[in-house]
Order: sequence, then structure tokens, then C-alpha cells
Amino acid sequence: MKMWDLAAAEDDRRFSPYCWRIRMALAHKGLEVETIPWRFTDKDAIGFSGQGLVPVIRDGATEVHDSWSIACYLDDTYPAKPLLEGRQARPLAYAFKFWVESALHGPVLRAILPDLFAALHEKDKAYFRESREKRFGRTLEEVGGDPKKAVAELRTALLPARQALVQSPFVSGGAPGFADYILFGPFQWARAVSPQRLLEPDDPVFAWRERMLDLYGGLARNAKGYPVWA
Amino acid sequence: MKMWDLAAAEDDRRFSPYCWRIRMALAHKGLEVETIPWRFTDKDAIGFSGQGLVPVIRDGATEVHDSWSIACYLDDTYPAKPLLEGRQARPLAYAFKFWVESALHGPVLRAILPDLFAALHEKDKAYFRESREKRFGRTLEEVGGDPKKAVAELRTALLPARQALVQSPFVSGGAPGFADYILFGPFQWARAVSPQRLLEPDDPVFAWRERMLDLYGGLARNAKGYPVWA
Repeated sequence: MKMWDLAAAEDDRRFSPYCWRIRMALAHKGLEVETIPWRFTDKDAIGFSGQGLVPVIRDGATEVHDSWSIACYLDDTYPAKPLLEGRQARPLAYAFKFWVESALHGPVLRAILPDLFAALHEKDKAYFRESREKRFGRTLEEVGGDPKKAVAELRTALLPARQALVQSPFVSGGAPGFADYILFGPFQWARAVSPQRLLEPDDPVFAWRERMLDLYGGLARNAKGYPVWA
Repeated sequence: MKMWDLAAAEDDRRFSPYCWRIRMALAHKGLEVETIPWRFTDKDAIGFSGQGLVPVIRDGATEVHDSWSIACYLDDTYPAKPLLEGRQARPLAYAFKFWVESALHGPVLRAILPDLFAALHEKDKAYFRESREKRFGRTLEEVGGDPKKAVAELRTALLPARQALVQSPFVSGGAPGFADYILFGPFQWARAVSPQRLLEPDDPVFAWRERMLDLYGGLARNAKGYPVWA
């Protein structure tokens, strides 16, 4: 199994929230993977996938891109240790994914943007600035201008996940599942590139993130990034 | 099975989003129920439950209150036709519930508030005004002052559900489940008391609501309320 994985200036600083979903999912399945550092501008390297974004995996003769499609592929191909268990979990996690992306990715990006931009590989900076300024209709400096406010927005927006994590140790229940890896993505994105403090230690989401960082021999905690406050 | 169910001025106008979750859940299970019209100020009538809100059900010698607890009780006691299937669906739907309540109940209430207040039983109006004005820190007229803006906010906030409903006919997948009844609650709340148009016909959420209104012999569509635009 090979996975093309977004890297910052250093090969071993991996920061994509979408790629982290799949790193965690592969570890959940107990599948070995060789990750290949990739930058936004390395479009040719994944041209075989017919599109230009990571994660992309190659599993024998099969190539899959898009983190949701990869998760479904993994469960369909390797049904042991399901990421999404039972007929309702896949559609419910699909709605959860759009909630995470629409409610949480924005505030996390705004909270870490100066650090994220500084961490990028030099060859990616112009691409990142141009594509993101087009997407947001504002300069990066405007988008990332008020990290304190972004952190406050994130903490408010986290309410549904927080309430779920008061009830059970993982969003998926007693054990982690793909919904947890979806929610973990933006936190690991931040941790890889920024010392920004996103959560207070008394937040149930903080304790959950600790559990996520400990999974699979500390896969995420041992990855290059900044410590989280305890 | 008996269920105490919030009613408006007329006994047969039932508008609580939490009670609708359970009406639909009981129909899903194929369980017969006698519903007892109840008003906010009828605290004594459900005093046996140790609290003052509906839904409350009495199933033989067992009394259960709180819609989430009732759903779990129904699945635990009557496991056929599960509302939440598999180990992950219950925690995922629990997060979904908090998303619906925090992201959607507010805009729906603001969109229908003048109609809702007008529909209440006379004996409930002072209680409703006092409790809600205390909760919101504003007068009912201030909270419900801009229904157009509230409808626009609702449509934006619906994005995660809308994306899920592009992928599958129900939030729970190929067949409805408790997450669908949670999402349906605020729409049926509105429909019971207000002609306010919450959704455009080309919205995938509109088509889903049509499917929900048709379930169980048109249980929700035949309930007293306003037609939805088609």
C-alpha cells in the first residue's frame, strides 16, 4: 500500500487533515503503508489518479483518491475492524464529515494560517496563496488576521462533538471509528504546523484528542508537530 | 403505550419537535400508542416522571421521559426494526442530535415564532413568553422579528444534512432511522403551526421531507398543520 501524503517544507511534516483521516484509518485496519511526501504543486506525481489532490492510495493494482472514497474502499476490501460499522454508520458519518468541514475547518484554518503558510515548502507558497485567496475572496493576511477570534469560534462550533464526547470516549462510541478520524483531521492539521492552543485542558474534546494522539503506538503524537498543552 | 404530547390551542395540533421524534419512532417500530394532549402548564399531569417536559411515555409499568432516552429504551426493549443499528449509530446520532438542536432549532424557531405564539393554548401563553424571554434574554417580538433572515440562516445551516441527502434517500441511509426523526422534528414543528416556507422545492432536503411526510401511511402529513409547497 502506498499513500501520497501532503508535506510541508520538511518531508516528515505531514499536515493535511484529509490525509490524516487515512493515516489513522490504515493504522486502525492494521495495514502497512509507505507514505510518499507530496506537495500541492506536484500535480504530475498523482496524474495517474485523474485529479490533483491527496490523499491518493495505490493498493496493488487499485488506485483510489478522495478520503471518503478511500475509507469506503478500505471497509469494502478489508472488512475486518470496520471503520464504519452497520448500515447507518456510513451515511451518518457522511453527514458528520460535512459538519466537520463546514463548521470546524474554517475556524481552525483562520487560527493557524500564518503558521501554516510559514511551514509550507517554498515551491508551494505561490500556489497556496493564489488558490486560497481566490477561494476566500480575501488575502491570506485578512483571513488569518484574528486567531483569537477564530479559536473562540472553533470552541463554540465544537458543541455537538463535545456533547457526544461527554457521553462516550469516542464520537463512534466505545472505540474509535472513521468519524473520529474525520474530527481529528483539523486538530492534527493544526498541531503539525502551529503552536496555537485550540482547546482548554478541561474541554472533553481535549481529553478525546489525547486519546487520539495515543492510538496506534502514538502514531499522531510522534509525528512532527507541536506539543499540545496538558 | 401512552405518550404525553404537546398540543396547541386545539387538542389535535401537535407541534413539539421532540414529541414528533417519538411519534415517528413508535410508528417505525409498529407500536400502537395512545397520545394524550398536554400543555406546557400541565406540569402535574406528568409529575410522576419527576420532571416537567414532554415527551413522556408509559409502557406498562415503565415510564420514560426525554426523547433520546425514549429512543434508546425502545431499541433496547423492542430490538426488531432498530431505530439505531450497529454499535456506531447510537453515538453518531447523539452528536447529530446536538447539531440539529444547536444549528437548526434556533433558525426554525425564529422563522415561525409569531405563528407559534398565536397557535398556543391561551393557558400556555404567559408561561411560554416568560420562559423563552428568560432563555433568550430578549422579547419574543425581538427574537421573531426577521423570519426572512431566519429562513436564510436555516438553509445555510442545513448544508451537512443536504450533502448527506444527495448521497442517500435518508440521513440514516436507504431507510429512515432515528437521525431522520431528529432532523424531521423542527420541520414538523414549523408545519404544525406556520405557513412559513422553509425550503425551496429544488432543495434535496425538501424531497427528503416529502418522503418523511409519506411514511407510515402519511402519519405526519395527515397531522393538523399547513401544507408544504410542492
